[in-house]
Amino acid sequence: MNVIKMIETHPAAIPIDAGILSRCIEDCVSCAQTCTACADACLAEGSVAELVRCIGLDLICADVCATTAATLTRQTAFEPQLVRRVVEACLDACRRCGDECEKHAVHHEHCRICAEDCRRCAQACEELLSALPS
Amino acid sequence: MNVIKMIETHPAAIPIDAGILSRCIEDCVSCAQTCTACADACLAEGSVAELVRCIGLDLICADVCATTAATLTRQTAFEPQLVRRVVEACLDACRRCGDECEKHAVHHEHCRICAEDCRRCAQACEELLSALPS
Amino acid sequence: MNVIKMIETHPAAIPIDAGILSRCIEDCVSCAQTCTACADACLAEGSVAELVRCIGLDLICADVCATTAATLTRQTAFEPQLVRRVVEACLDACRRCGDECEKHAVHHEHCRICAEDCRRCAQACEELLSALPS
Amino acid sequence: MNVIKMIETHPAAIPIDAGILSRCIEDCVSCAQTCTACADACLAEGSVAELVRCIGLDLICADVCATTAATLTRQTAFEPQLVRRVVEACLDACRRCGDECEKHAVHHEHCRICAEDCRRCAQACEELLSALPS
Repeated sequence: MNVIKMIETHPAAIPIDAGILSRCIEDCVSCAQTCTACADACLAEGSVAELVRCIGLDLICADVCATTAATLTRQTAFEPQLVRRVVEACLDACRRCGDECEKHAVHHEHCRICAEDCRRCAQACEELLSALPS
Repeated sequence: MNVIKMIETHPAAIPIDAGILSRCIEDCVSCAQTCTACADACLAEGSVAELVRCIGLDLICADVCATTAATLTRQTAFEPQLVRRVVEACLDACRRCGDECEKHAVHHEHCRICAEDCRRCAQACEELLSALPS
Repeated sequence: MNVIKMIETHPAAIPIDAGILSRCIEDCVSCAQTCTACADACLAEGSVAELVRCIGLDLICADVCATTAATLTRQTAFEPQLVRRVVEACLDACRRCGDECEKHAVHHEHCRICAEDCRRCAQACEELLSALPS
Repeated sequence: MNVIKMIETHPAAIPIDAGILSRCIEDCVSCAQTCTACADACLAEGSVAELVRCIGLDLICADVCATTAATLTRQTAFEPQLVRRVVEACLDACRRCGDECEKHAVHHEHCRICAEDCRRCAQACEELLSALPS
């Protein structure tokens, strides 16, 4: 992905370190994609009835991560307070989805990978929240 | 839209009044659509250079409202705290976008309608936040 | 929804009847929402294992309908050939999802409503394809 | 991104080479992100009035690429004909958006990068269409 290059060639500067911003966008994009894939893989499992909450959280987390990536990418109307609320929601979604996927990680490799991506994205959200001007 | 009918035929009950929930979903869906349309109408105006922040906020508000509608619709993995964070972000996005559109309401009818839809959605978010179990 | 009003106040005219365009946008938005709700309701059913294909098609149809609504709403870069391809994909998604939901309509009211919304959206897509300049 | 790993750990097999499938998903996800960024960078340019069509196509291409990635990821309800229509729409969107960005590539580096990502995604779509069972 060309996230950092696109940030560097953007005509407007925003008051966040470009490395922290690009990592959070990348991890949100990646987590959204993995959660969409995990929801579908869970759906195809014979034990789907036990994975219902996992599928539900995967789908919510995918939506929230995608919207967070888009919000962080839209630097033209950058509003620190709004960004903060969106990223806080994303952090919460990633933690819950990561916790649920973790429970199924022993039986399903796709859940193990998804839990990992959720953890990484949660960390990137925390880092961005620390760097965000108040 | 069949939002209320779909809530009533859902096998799982969630601890929010169905009327409040369906109104918030409907207003989020409607606001997302109007914001997408307003962004595009602003883009086609001769005075586009003055509408740049409006377009940026319209696009963010459209994304956040769409994700909020989907999150509220996914009752299977209902998590009151996560829902609260998502709806708070939505309320904030709608207020900012509504304020910006309001500034252009005299000159552009699409901004006037969009400001109205943002206000209605913000109110529905507030109502849902009041009804949400802590 | 204010779809028709937003079309009428858009500064750029596109070569499609506003009534046909707005109906297709409205039906896409509505179908996307109903499909998202049906996927979640199916997920919460005790018989989820029998509804796996229905959930998968609901989620695809929701995505395709939402993108079709947004594409039709973005009149500033109106490209008849691209619009045709997007709406053809939407028509196909709605037909397949409607057929699948129909199979479960006797047992699940949410599937019956969703089949109906898919049919209505497919019809609106057909009407728009007929009205589209070649 | 963990696209290939998620395909390999998915319990259902689909009749497409995993390498071709994962490359198309990755390029769609990446192109959607770059188009969102390019639309926002164009919006912040002093010459925004000349970039209006570019912004419009960027936003459409972003939506279509994101939906194509999600459709290809949902292997549980894999329907070759529907996949074909969605990917054909994506190919068309990427070509048009790439052509438009190309026109501004000399003046705006973000348009140059975006044109490149659109070309790569169009190629991945063509490759997938060739590999798709009829």
